[in-house]
Amino acid sequence: MIKFDCDYSEGCHPNILKKMIDTNFVQTDTYGFDVYCQSAIQKIRKACGKPNARVYFAVGGTQANKVVIASILRPHQGVICAESGHINVHEAGAIESDGHKVIALAQKDGKLTAATLKAYLEDFWADPTHPHRVQPRMVYISSPTELGTLYSKKELQEISSICKKYKLVLYLDGARLGYGLQADGADFTLRDIANFTDVFYIGGTKVGALCGEAIVFPKDNNLDEDFFSIFKQEGAVMAKGRLLGIQFDVLFTDNLYETVGRHAIKEAMRIKKAFKAKGIKFAVNSPTNQQFPILPKEVIKKFKKQFVFDIAPDLGQDRLMTRFCTSWATKPEDVDVLIKEIEKI
Amino acid sequence: MIKFDCDYSEGCHPNILKKMIDTNFVQTDTYGFDVYCQSAIQKIRKACGKPNARVYFAVGGTQANKVVIASILRPHQGVICAESGHINVHEAGAIESDGHKVIALAQKDGKLTAATLKAYLEDFWADPTHPHRVQPRMVYISSPTELGTLYSKKELQEISSICKKYKLVLYLDGARLGYGLQADGADFTLRDIANFTDVFYIGGTKVGALCGEAIVFPKDNNLDEDFFSIFKQEGAVMAKGRLLGIQFDVLFTDNLYETVGRHAIKEAMRIKKAFKAKGIKFAVNSPTNQQFPILPKEVIKKFKKQFVFDIAPDLGQDRLMTRFCTSWATKPEDVDVLIKEIEKI
Amino acid sequence: MIKFDCDYSEGCHPNILKKMIDTNFVQTDTYGFDVYCQSAIQKIRKACGKPNARVYFAVGGTQANKVVIASILRPHQGVICAESGHINVHEAGAIESDGHKVIALAQKDGKLTAATLKAYLEDFWADPTHPHRVQPRMVYISSPTELGTLYSKKELQEISSICKKYKLVLYLDGARLGYGLQADGADFTLRDIANFTDVFYIGGTKVGALCGEAIVFPKDNNLDEDFFSIFKQEGAVMAKGRLLGIQFDVLFTDNLYETVGRHAIKEAMRIKKAFKAKGIKFAVNSPTNQQFPILPKEVIKKFKKQFVFDIAPDLGQDRLMTRFCTSWATKPEDVDVLIKEIEKI
Amino acid sequence: MIKFDCDYSEGCHPNILKKMIDTNFVQTDTYGFDVYCQSAIQKIRKACGKPNARVYFAVGGTQANKVVIASILRPHQGVICAESGHINVHEAGAIESDGHKVIALAQKDGKLTAATLKAYLEDFWADPTHPHRVQPRMVYISSPTELGTLYSKKELQEISSICKKYKLVLYLDGARLGYGLQADGADFTLRDIANFTDVFYIGGTKVGALCGEAIVFPKDNNLDEDFFSIFKQEGAVMAKGRLLGIQFDVLFTDNLYETVGRHAIKEAMRIKKAFKAKGIKFAVNSPTNQQFPILPKEVIKKFKKQFVFDIAPDLGQDRLMTRFCTSWATKPEDVDVLIKEIEKI
Repeated sequence: MIKFDCDYSEGCHPNILKKMIDTNFVQTDTYGFDVYCQSAIQKIRKACGKPNARVYFAVGGTQANKVVIASILRPHQGVICAESGHINVHEAGAIESDGHKVIALAQKDGKLTAATLKAYLEDFWADPTHPHRVQPRMVYISSPTELGTLYSKKELQEISSICKKYKLVLYLDGARLGYGLQADGADFTLRDIANFTDVFYIGGTKVGALCGEAIVFPKDNNLDEDFFSIFKQEGAVMAKGRLLGIQFDVLFTDNLYETVGRHAIKEAMRIKKAFKAKGIKFAVNSPTNQQFPILPKEVIKKFKKQFVFDIAPDLGQDRLMTRFCTSWATKPEDVDVLIKEIEKI
Repeated sequence: MIKFDCDYSEGCHPNILKKMIDTNFVQTDTYGFDVYCQSAIQKIRKACGKPNARVYFAVGGTQANKVVIASILRPHQGVICAESGHINVHEAGAIESDGHKVIALAQKDGKLTAATLKAYLEDFWADPTHPHRVQPRMVYISSPTELGTLYSKKELQEISSICKKYKLVLYLDGARLGYGLQADGADFTLRDIANFTDVFYIGGTKVGALCGEAIVFPKDNNLDEDFFSIFKQEGAVMAKGRLLGIQFDVLFTDNLYETVGRHAIKEAMRIKKAFKAKGIKFAVNSPTNQQFPILPKEVIKKFKKQFVFDIAPDLGQDRLMTRFCTSWATKPEDVDVLIKEIEKI
Repeated sequence: MIKFDCDYSEGCHPNILKKMIDTNFVQTDTYGFDVYCQSAIQKIRKACGKPNARVYFAVGGTQANKVVIASILRPHQGVICAESGHINVHEAGAIESDGHKVIALAQKDGKLTAATLKAYLEDFWADPTHPHRVQPRMVYISSPTELGTLYSKKELQEISSICKKYKLVLYLDGARLGYGLQADGADFTLRDIANFTDVFYIGGTKVGALCGEAIVFPKDNNLDEDFFSIFKQEGAVMAKGRLLGIQFDVLFTDNLYETVGRHAIKEAMRIKKAFKAKGIKFAVNSPTNQQFPILPKEVIKKFKKQFVFDIAPDLGQDRLMTRFCTSWATKPEDVDVLIKEIEKI
Repeated sequence: MIKFDCDYSEGCHPNILKKMIDTNFVQTDTYGFDVYCQSAIQKIRKACGKPNARVYFAVGGTQANKVVIASILRPHQGVICAESGHINVHEAGAIESDGHKVIALAQKDGKLTAATLKAYLEDFWADPTHPHRVQPRMVYISSPTELGTLYSKKELQEISSICKKYKLVLYLDGARLGYGLQADGADFTLRDIANFTDVFYIGGTKVGALCGEAIVFPKDNNLDEDFFSIFKQEGAVMAKGRLLGIQFDVLFTDNLYETVGRHAIKEAMRIKKAFKAKGIKFAVNSPTNQQFPILPKEVIKKFKKQFVFDIAPDLGQDRLMTRFCTSWATKPEDVDVLIKEIEKI
């Protein structure tokens, strides 16, 4: 069986393993104060164009979201996101467990639009009963989104400017940012993200690392005051922080983060093109490493013999939405096998 | 100015004040273990037809909702409600502050329908990723709803039976239950509610008391295990519990709770009829003490000189939704004044 | 049976009842925005000598403590108190339930000493691992304490100055402040408390009210930012806020708060003197309305036939600590009966 | 500089690295459902003598403690531990942040004694006000303790039997269990721990792994109901769970866990013996990999040129407590260097 069901089925990029071997018996400081973390932080600052950015390494995405949000909000404040946002659906109530409401607004292609956001905020502040409601204080967006779509630079700019106006913290979940940055038509850079947001994370787990997400506070505004203690309280500080430092140090050396991102996109586009050539429609037009073709049931049945991929629940339709993912580790020959099957549809 | 903007603008029913005066210097036990609380509990048990029901007195509705829900859910569990539910909108995130997601589903006339509930639960349990999602464990309904509508006996029965099937605790917020029970066409009794739900509260604050809501666990199922301690932890145990006991004792003496409920409904129906006679449409067809006529702006302008009532935000329409409430304390002569003005429309 | 076991066995001062009756049908605004709350706030500001103080009315003491602390601390911060502090013992984990550690330090006669506080803070900040520990950000003291003792003006000043140095918020729980202010030898005023602390509450429940504690933020420092929303979230906002406003308005009219406090102290001192005359020792030398005589078991046995009072657990000693409370409602003739019995020891 | 300041200064055991390399491109399931986790679970079950034990892999110790405790306690319940317990001191309030009080009792050599525990529980349940207090529902012990000491089999048995009597869940934090099991005089096995406790974790991070702690629910009692969801909610589920599975699979293959434990103990005892030979006293008599010699300041000054080790704060004494740790990775030749210096004292 060839797995296309997610982008974290393998271990990590060989360069990372190599560095882990080379440094294994070097004695280092702990809790993220080791030389590898320090080196990785410098490289990330440079990549973001923010020499004073504060950077912390979390093990996983839910943890990163949980700690960032908990460290910023006061008890009566909530975080706005698209109803399809990861924090609203697939984090088992992580945000609420820290006491905060996820204010879920309508999504469009997995994105929160500036218009939807603006309308909500205008309505909230115009409502005389608003002190009885959860106060919006933060906006969470993911890019690529859970549906593989991307915010354009213009969309980021608009959301950012609404956030400034309403004194909201803008937070970007970049679990798959490595793929987003390399997507066809991506018109923003890491520097743009560092400019538009107040905090974001650069995903490692899905982009070549064993684990790890780099949380970046790009601005000089003390937003990360005492962050370490809250990080510790949430059980998120890794004793051997070197494991995360080494990985990001390698990912940000010799453009590895770009290289592995580009690879996944290239393979995803080959799959997309093959489906398109057969007239297959997509649930959403994704320029990234997740593709959502809507396939006839008999095709699904046939494909399941050879490939692992996600299939939406069968509610009686003829065709079902499916998801095929590529990653830094996808073998072109495996994609060849898939394309061959697609061509037979 | 005559106030029709809410049903808690006055103090309390004179019978309550009288008993407070009569008993003022009687020395009692504290924290709800006094003779008045005990007497009120007996009367409520009788009214519910549940001689073993466990009853606790909270000061207010948000507090009651907060404590009941926090005492029952485990960390990963959430409570389903209509998106217009009080816990989802006007409690400033009280439920989330205890760690739980409010799973807001579409409402119809302020109600959660059995069909909507069933569809959500089927989808949840069919989803292979459900362990990553907040587990539904409780259903919150309010009756009368925030829009003044009522669940019928059949609707309660359907929801109750879905809850049984999916092992959900059914909780009814009865902030205005006293009005609901007396509404035109109300086809359920307090006993029905005690049969259909696992826990509910009988509202006092809006139905003649200074404050106080009676939380009832009607079933013999230990659902209230250690409830007192959680009640205390939430800051909800009143030192002089007698204040709540006396009020409910009086409300459940000589059918006072029915009498004051009936009065409010009678006055509300006079207002409704008057608006209807002038062809005024309503935002929702409410049989209870809250009426939502949609009035032309010039009428609103005129009415505002003499009456206080709620007005929906002006988003550029010609007519706006308004809310007129009656209560146990509404003076018929004040309603006469209002009707006279309505007749001039 | 005559009850001396607590100071909240009766209803409320007759002046309060009278005003409740007089105003019962006046229609007011809700949630604390009524005219009685506004009037009470003005009177409290004046009594504190702080014309800009922010004042909120909570129903009970645990609630007040819970909301004040939750509104001020960030997730990794804790509140220091004496190990005998109410928040550490008898609030069922109310502070922890909002996510915060109660940092309990050794007590002396129920008090936290400046020396103990200083030593803890010096140790904390000298510890290189302190970011792994809960950060002290607030100090909670109660005066009178749970043991009936009082902080002197000098002690308050010392603690206040340590708090300033270490950027800690100083919070005083004044559940029985009315008695403390009238105690023999009390050398501080309400104005001193308003000067030394950042937030405190003036107890009503135990000093003549049915319920209610007035939370005061005396300084012009925005410490109460968005307090209403957190207050609401905690279920602590009373719909008919007038009930609290009326009570504090009456208590702060014609020196009633002083008068009732003085009465309780006078009766307590009579009891103290009677015990002392018989050579009875006290567990603590309390100048307030709670007295802790250590009585022989046979005396306890005899007294229990006529009086209700608290008795410490019997761990095999000959004599047990007891607690006798007086209050605003204590009848001098009941104290006469008690003294007569004491004289027979 | 040679580091003796902690037991997590290096990467991981070479066998682990080797298996990571060998399996790097194998495609696996995620979130702990991969073949390596399944294999590790089987091996752990066998080592514990509990074929039905439920096993989950957390990344770190604070996380493990946090999730286990949060998943078991209801809101009003707390966890008892020695005042020196890790959850009470060095987890930045992790337990409180989930709403639960850490009930810290007096420690003796870092341990909670059965007598202290029993006295607390008897007092609690005898106190008529106990419903106003946090209910003890769990006991947390660490073995080895934070001071390097060990519970004997008899001590474990006594605590276990008190827990049974009072219906408390007994939880053992085994961050350094690998060293404890190999300590001189250790009279218990992994099977004993599985028998005496209700849940415990086997530490990996400090005993040869890069990261990872294996949480074990040894009993067939459903104590882990829905644990996965709470695990996810806490941000503790690793996407590439394989990383943890591989590590524990290797640690429990060919007795590696015993071997590395034994190595650390052997080196620690060499250090201990050397200090003893020079008449140096120890703060505590530790049979495990942490040694706490009390050294003259001039010795400390000299040692600091060559070694890294922990030093207690200087409060004006002549001698200070220090901590020297060995680990799975300690090089005998480094210990030789240290011993040579000790001999010069």
